[in-house]
Amino acid sequence: MTDNIPRSAIDRRALLSMLALLPVLSAPLVSISASAQTTTSSGALPSWNDGPAKQAILDFVRDTTGPGSPKFVLPEDRIATFDQDGTLWVEHPIYSQFIYCLDRVPAVIKAKPALAKVEPFKTVLSGDREAIAKLPLRGLEEIAIATLSGMTVDEFDAEAKKWLETAKDPRWKRPYTDLTYQPMQDVLSYLRANGYKTYIVTGGGQDFVRMYSDRVYGIPREQVVGSAGETTYGYDKDGKPFLTKEPKVLLNDNNAGKAENIHLMIGRRPHAAFGNSTGDRQMLEYTKAGDGARLSMIVLHDDAQREYAYGPARGLPDTKVGTFTQALYDEAKKDGWTVISMKNDWKKIFSFE
Amino acid sequence: MTDNIPRSAIDRRALLSMLALLPVLSAPLVSISASAQTTTSSGALPSWNDGPAKQAILDFVRDTTGPGSPKFVLPEDRIATFDQDGTLWVEHPIYSQFIYCLDRVPAVIKAKPALAKVEPFKTVLSGDREAIAKLPLRGLEEIAIATLSGMTVDEFDAEAKKWLETAKDPRWKRPYTDLTYQPMQDVLSYLRANGYKTYIVTGGGQDFVRMYSDRVYGIPREQVVGSAGETTYGYDKDGKPFLTKEPKVLLNDNNAGKAENIHLMIGRRPHAAFGNSTGDRQMLEYTKAGDGARLSMIVLHDDAQREYAYGPARGLPDTKVGTFTQALYDEAKKDGWTVISMKNDWKKIFSFE
Repeated sequence: MTDNIPRSAIDRRALLSMLALLPVLSAPLVSISASAQTTTSSGALPSWNDGPAKQAILDFVRDTTGPGSPKFVLPEDRIATFDQDGTLWVEHPIYSQFIYCLDRVPAVIKAKPALAKVEPFKTVLSGDREAIAKLPLRGLEEIAIATLSGMTVDEFDAEAKKWLETAKDPRWKRPYTDLTYQPMQDVLSYLRANGYKTYIVTGGGQDFVRMYSDRVYGIPREQVVGSAGETTYGYDKDGKPFLTKEPKVLLNDNNAGKAENIHLMIGRRPHAAFGNSTGDRQMLEYTKAGDGARLSMIVLHDDAQREYAYGPARGLPDTKVGTFTQALYDEAKKDGWTVISMKNDWKKIFSFE
Repeated sequence: MTDNIPRSAIDRRALLSMLALLPVLSAPLVSISASAQTTTSSGALPSWNDGPAKQAILDFVRDTTGPGSPKFVLPEDRIATFDQDGTLWVEHPIYSQFIYCLDRVPAVIKAKPALAKVEPFKTVLSGDREAIAKLPLRGLEEIAIATLSGMTVDEFDAEAKKWLETAKDPRWKRPYTDLTYQPMQDVLSYLRANGYKTYIVTGGGQDFVRMYSDRVYGIPREQVVGSAGETTYGYDKDGKPFLTKEPKVLLNDNNAGKAENIHLMIGRRPHAAFGNSTGDRQMLEYTKAGDGARLSMIVLHDDAQREYAYGPARGLPDTKVGTFTQALYDEAKKDGWTVISMKNDWKKIFSFE
């Protein structure tokens, strides 16, 4: 089922609203942090072509960390936030976390067989890809709620870990966690080497992303801000406490929610923010509106050959996934955000190229 | 008004429920982190008397950080959480944050004069201390909502900063931020020197505590988990974005909320937790229930001479503030939490002694 979901057919907003329901894990993955780069700019950002986007990053780091710089930023205030889907890794044609939800449906049916005859589960089980792609928003939400809640933290842990180790992207035939953009890995390393604390701020499920953030990005789980469901504290028959994931959204980390949750979870305005869609607009605005040197950058998916091309900017056709609209492009130009062209600014896309 | 609020008259739970409404600040205080101590146990915890409580901390650090220890904990999993009021600093006879709320009432009345004739504001303005102490829970909530919401982040910043610089505790005639327990400062430093990341997990307002956590405890604002109100993102007349504090509780960081919000904000089960009341019970249980070496400690206020004595354990009279109940004491003994006697275990209480 997973490998053949048609591209672009499932609405981005619909998916985003469903990824809010993942509990935290008690058994963490072993950390393999990205190694620090040199703090000098020579040799920094090796996967970037020379150009205005690379230069904007180098200038920002020089201005905010250089001794004697009038725009010097205290180390404790060096916060950089990154959207994940479409900014740090591939989001097209469908978010990998929603594929996880679809793959979890059979297990949900096994626990509650009566659901097999009820929509939207009936359609998912049919394997009819066209029909799955046409499910209404309410149906997609029901899938997310059913697959991402009602279990303990430990149960979620085991399920998500197993999936992440085995599921593969159909185009590249690799684990989804291999599909991070090497130029953005360069940025994460370069900013950290210059004293920045890097955060993921994602519309996806906070606790799903926490399963791999350290291993994949060198970002510890407490530096992942995402959509999140409520949990409730309870006791098992032996009196041992545990947390259960409830089918209720606590944080919707999209749009204004990104700025609001940065405030809640971090408590400092970022000095740098990276996004790729309208869901990142407020985070980019909020970052850029701060005093001193602020860097807001937005990734334009304009490389159909090496990755994908979507969004209306530069005359590219719009799709339902990745809503980098013309209005957002205009705001970027007006407010001084830097647009990153994958095609022109990135020497390579993936580490395995 | 502030200096003469009668002791013990305002219910703890009532206060806790009101401290959830503070926005974050964009202009941080300058960091003055506590200096790291040596990682060896000789010379560690200098403000502690030798005894079972001090030994429990030394044993825990040895077991979780010693090379080759069967209970060794990976550095990224070294999380320690601390309740604030009554655990890190004085909470008796009244939480300093609620004094802030009372002190803010005149400014609220100035903005909305009609409130002067309405309860509970009428009573607060009267200065009648007996009457203020007898206000019902609903009245206390109204005071908190009126004084801690309806302003922008920047406005809150300016007000809270000014208050913290000038307000003083009536018994010790010092700023409230001087009233931290030196033995707990020792613990914070000792754990950090051994690779632990220290968090405050408070029923108090997250963003109020973030105003001074770095300067006072060496804990950066993003490592403060507390009760929190919703914020909303908006634009001023020039199109510049800002966040407004809303009169609606998002996170109630008391009781089960402490375990649930540790999950939300940190995403890892602590290996050590410190509290002093029933509001910390679930955090202490959740910590202790983890695998391997876990340390749960609870502060008993049994030193009427150097600080205060309250709580029923050891035959002390109960009061409405600091509900260290007999049931909690029994659970501590049964579950292997370590009780800290301020009188017996602490060589000194404050740094200025």
